[in-house]
Amino acid sequence: MNVGLYRGNTRTGAVDPASRGIAYGDGLFETMRVHAGGVPWWQRHWARLAAGAARLGIPLPDPGFVAAEVDRLLEGRSEGVLKLVVTRGVGARGYTPAPNADADWQLALHPLPVTEVSDGLVLRWCRIRLAHQPLLAGLKHCNRLEQVLARAEWLEADARERLADEGLLCDQEGSVISATAANLFVLRGGRWRTPALDGCGVAGICRQWAIDTLDAEQVRLAPTDVSSAEAVFLCNAVRGILPVARLDGRSWPPQPAVARARRLLAGAHPAFATEPS
Amino acid sequence: MNVGLYRGNTRTGAVDPASRGIAYGDGLFETMRVHAGGVPWWQRHWARLAAGAARLGIPLPDPGFVAAEVDRLLEGRSEGVLKLVVTRGVGARGYTPAPNADADWQLALHPLPVTEVSDGLVLRWCRIRLAHQPLLAGLKHCNRLEQVLARAEWLEADARERLADEGLLCDQEGSVISATAANLFVLRGGRWRTPALDGCGVAGICRQWAIDTLDAEQVRLAPTDVSSAEAVFLCNAVRGILPVARLDGRSWPPQPAVARARRLLAGAHPAFATEPS
Repeated sequence: MNVGLYRGNTRTGAVDPASRGIAYGDGLFETMRVHAGGVPWWQRHWARLAAGAARLGIPLPDPGFVAAEVDRLLEGRSEGVLKLVVTRGVGARGYTPAPNADADWQLALHPLPVTEVSDGLVLRWCRIRLAHQPLLAGLKHCNRLEQVLARAEWLEADARERLADEGLLCDQEGSVISATAANLFVLRGGRWRTPALDGCGVAGICRQWAIDTLDAEQVRLAPTDVSSAEAVFLCNAVRGILPVARLDGRSWPPQPAVARARRLLAGAHPAFATEPS
Repeated sequence: MNVGLYRGNTRTGAVDPASRGIAYGDGLFETMRVHAGGVPWWQRHWARLAAGAARLGIPLPDPGFVAAEVDRLLEGRSEGVLKLVVTRGVGARGYTPAPNADADWQLALHPLPVTEVSDGLVLRWCRIRLAHQPLLAGLKHCNRLEQVLARAEWLEADARERLADEGLLCDQEGSVISATAANLFVLRGGRWRTPALDGCGVAGICRQWAIDTLDAEQVRLAPTDVSSAEAVFLCNAVRGILPVARLDGRSWPPQPAVARARRLLAGAHPAFATEPS
């Protein structure tokens, strides 16, 4: 078994075709690193999920039951990526949320991504601009067509040939927000900075760790603030801190400040220990 | 049977838990009126779906196969609401669209809504403001959290007591866009006008019929342009043209221009024949 399907605090055998996930993307998700048979940041992931569920009015299942099902799914597995998707309970046709319906949710275990990035990521700028919706900003919700369209701007072949590993996204006002599946940090004047996410973007778990640990500032960033930065990294909770080597014409040799951030993360969570390269 | 599940041109027995519909709302839908065992605007619905699928890069199944499955589902049924949801084919975890994967899709037949509206709808203003995303504007895509949050602003009890049947939505700039599940038309200076949908909103099938038939103008509308209008109606492809009786402090007695629009629609499509009241 590498997928578990649930409604409220009960296992189910199938996805309800009337899922509000399919109909409206009416849900939230967490993508988590599995290491040594456990989930390093489980509490933080659950806290973010709970905050999102409170904002959307989705009743979560019992956290103890979910944790037990995670343990069951991870039994005998050491490494991987765990995805938890929670969607609002099924009600009548139409947008009206069913007031007391149990949430539908699923757990799925995936292999770790294998991309070798010790020489640093190659980034590109995406053309699509993220819309501002303060009521959804920061949430890892399931309305992700913007990210799908952004990722469709370059081909898998480009990624294989290392023409582009990831894409950077600006909002409608031209401020830099994030990559398609990672947050962004830039070193300027010796201080780490990361885009403020009050209008759009996902407030990542690894991003929060980096803000706290590196005393990073949340600011507005213009594209030139990235290209002229002293160092750049991306981060997410699956891959940790990923150095950036190139963005359009600009390239960065390995930066001690990024290496230090990676060491700090590896020290805090062995899952993210830097691979010998 | 009142639900059919499919992948490409094949019937399937279940929803794939890895559906990109659930993960990202990566899909499109059509909500259609069933009348006398047929779907009055089938060609228009399919054309809109195809335009959306082209914009999102989702390969549609064979239209002849879909039409045959619709006939099968409607067999023996006369009236109802038919919902078609098409989601991008399942690929690996992550935003990258699977390049040649067959789309997953479903058909579901629902009962007609029973709300009696012959005395006109009661409208309210929603607080949430729609985000601008020109790349998705007009599409009936499955990223609908804004509509879910808008609809959650008033209770079912309010609807039952006729305190609010529907809510009007503005965009981030304060222009009026639509109701949560219907388009908006206002009569001003003897001419019908409806919000332009270049930044957000759904370009409804009944809206297009009304634009063509009533020679309506697509414009920017301020909230006061609605409250001071000579007449107001909402429309969608399930319920046709719905007169508006009240919006906050303003009320409208039955308007001959709305009655005329309803007669024209009933003449074009018997499904929308005005009920005696």
